[in-house]
Amino acid sequence: MSIRKRRESRPAEAGVKRRDFLKKAGTGTVAIAATTAAASSFPKPSLAQGAMQWRMQTTWPKNFPGLGTGANKLAEFIGKASGGKLTVEVFGGGEIVPPFETMDAVSSGTLEMGHGAPYYWKGKVSASQFIASIPFGLNVAEQNSWLQFGGGQEIADKVYRELGCKFFASGNTGVQAGGWFNKEINSLEDYKGLKMRIPGLGGEVVKAAGGNVVNLPGGEIPPALASGAIDATEWVGPYNDLAFGLYKSAKFYYYPGWHEPATLLDNFINLSAWEGLDSELKAIVETANSYANAYVLNEFNANNNKSLDTLVNEHGVTLKKFPDSVLSGLGGLAGQVIGDLAAADPLSTEVLSSIVAFRSQAISYAKVSEEAFYTARRLPFDWVKL
Amino acid sequence: MSIRKRRESRPAEAGVKRRDFLKKAGTGTVAIAATTAAASSFPKPSLAQGAMQWRMQTTWPKNFPGLGTGANKLAEFIGKASGGKLTVEVFGGGEIVPPFETMDAVSSGTLEMGHGAPYYWKGKVSASQFIASIPFGLNVAEQNSWLQFGGGQEIADKVYRELGCKFFASGNTGVQAGGWFNKEINSLEDYKGLKMRIPGLGGEVVKAAGGNVVNLPGGEIPPALASGAIDATEWVGPYNDLAFGLYKSAKFYYYPGWHEPATLLDNFINLSAWEGLDSELKAIVETANSYANAYVLNEFNANNNKSLDTLVNEHGVTLKKFPDSVLSGLGGLAGQVIGDLAAADPLSTEVLSSIVAFRSQAISYAKVSEEAFYTARRLPFDWVKL
Repeated sequence: MSIRKRRESRPAEAGVKRRDFLKKAGTGTVAIAATTAAASSFPKPSLAQGAMQWRMQTTWPKNFPGLGTGANKLAEFIGKASGGKLTVEVFGGGEIVPPFETMDAVSSGTLEMGHGAPYYWKGKVSASQFIASIPFGLNVAEQNSWLQFGGGQEIADKVYRELGCKFFASGNTGVQAGGWFNKEINSLEDYKGLKMRIPGLGGEVVKAAGGNVVNLPGGEIPPALASGAIDATEWVGPYNDLAFGLYKSAKFYYYPGWHEPATLLDNFINLSAWEGLDSELKAIVETANSYANAYVLNEFNANNNKSLDTLVNEHGVTLKKFPDSVLSGLGGLAGQVIGDLAAADPLSTEVLSSIVAFRSQAISYAKVSEEAFYTARRLPFDWVKL
Repeated sequence: MSIRKRRESRPAEAGVKRRDFLKKAGTGTVAIAATTAAASSFPKPSLAQGAMQWRMQTTWPKNFPGLGTGANKLAEFIGKASGGKLTVEVFGGGEIVPPFETMDAVSSGTLEMGHGAPYYWKGKVSASQFIASIPFGLNVAEQNSWLQFGGGQEIADKVYRELGCKFFASGNTGVQAGGWFNKEINSLEDYKGLKMRIPGLGGEVVKAAGGNVVNLPGGEIPPALASGAIDATEWVGPYNDLAFGLYKSAKFYYYPGWHEPATLLDNFINLSAWEGLDSELKAIVETANSYANAYVLNEFNANNNKSLDTLVNEHGVTLKKFPDSVLSGLGGLAGQVIGDLAAADPLSTEVLSSIVAFRSQAISYAKVSEEAFYTARRLPFDWVKL
């Protein structure tokens, strides 16, 4: 078993300012609302004989609701299950290196672990953006099944090897909300000139529809929406959207979130640190990630249920479904945009081909299983009264 | 840490015959197709100093596709992650005690662990049947969220304490198929006199609709369907239904499986064995169950996708949706039947009240998230072509 020594944080990398963080956060499509102060030094706990201590930095602020809890659970379970043989200290984005330099720090071995979202690394390896979530792609149950039984884990590992890392799925938001709009969307034409904050692949699709896509950092969204500087924005889903107060600045809350049907959070581990683990610790890290993956989704679902109820029944939010003609139009544009991006390099083509094949069977099965059950369940009948 | 000694299997309990097994299997609603020969003795591996060896019996045959893999994965990861400090030997139903006596054996400490489905234990504690899956109740994502964030784990633990056990969710089939029919169902009236094999709460609902409910053991279903002795049967979903060859004996494959929207598999642990584990092993057992829970669902989803394709495109199976009027009628009957059953004892009322509250918010959220995404995704547009 290789013992990796804990390194001091590098002062030059530690001084990330709140504003820089929010600006960079705006380039990703997982929302980040606030950051924590940069820390310049950390106490060194004493370690038992042969024990390893790793450091994990997240791309979001420490303890950030929904997104940050997976990283905390992951670290907690690794420490507990290994009986302290491997402990993982969690740092918020910017505490050791700037949030979007987390991958560099893990690749180079400054950190052993990072926690973020695959599309943050598309500038380094373009194929990573297709592992995160794709407009009109797989939903979360299908994505998990693709990873474990559809060859997805092997392909994701191949992509992350290019980054010097081992990949694990480590949380998921589930399908996101369609976004907050001050203009009604009645036809695809209504996207022409629409000023919308929507990053990532979804943003590319809106651009293709003629939209004026803006990438605003989180903190600037509510005033921009209130002043009319933007007409629309997406964020995450009811849980985070309620906390962010977006209902105060927009008339309509559209669904579904066609642009991010299953946003995956990644745990990436420096490849030689991973390979240095014995089979016991590898098993612990793998199961802990599986636990975190389910935990984050379960937390999002429970809080989205409650928060939607609050948005509609306490704040009088108007829910609107995108018309089918709009969804069909966006779906076709998504096919073109994503296909073109993926065709640009062989690794992206490999990732997307695997997803396309899995999705085609998944759509047929979903239609007669989960989808049909959802519609059956909300037919007008009286269920159990207690 | 308490060290539990391994006990010899009791010869009197070990000689379970295939026919008895299949007969008893027919009383549960998770399908069981075959069994293994009873074993009367097992080699004793030598154990490292301080190591514990537990025995887990499943209610289904060892290595049974879909249902049995969760138990195997659970045992495998506990052994690996604990570095051999706790190993779990897996036995198929009938190898140590008859399948449906697994709970007695775990309650009494003959076995430390069992793996089955909560409704198998309804004869002992009626409330357990509501933890498994309820007609028109929660789907699998909601059920997992209810367990972790809706108070479900605490309630399930309370139910299983009555059985002298600790409870974990340890696998899920997802929404099952509606079943195989030789008569068309065009109105609720068509259930009158319909001879259908459908056990559990779903069977109670079909009875309330006037159906003639039959509980046939697995192996007798295909000939009964072919001869007209029964008009219809449910089984699991495309994966197991294809393997069982039901398409050879029935005209129509109906959807959705309103009767079992998320059939949960349980891992139950003798309460004093559980309490004797240190926090490290408790963490390992908890995460391993979370892993198994996801793994089984992922396997079912991947195989259901493929198997549906085979059923439709190779075997020409005709898929039919239950008409909305039928689903509404069954939904109303389900509400009455389940409500009456739950009102009979306080623990059942407590379980069901918690589920009813969670479900009411979940339905509203599903409508604007997963359900809306599914319907949007299969609109007629060209997605990615590679």
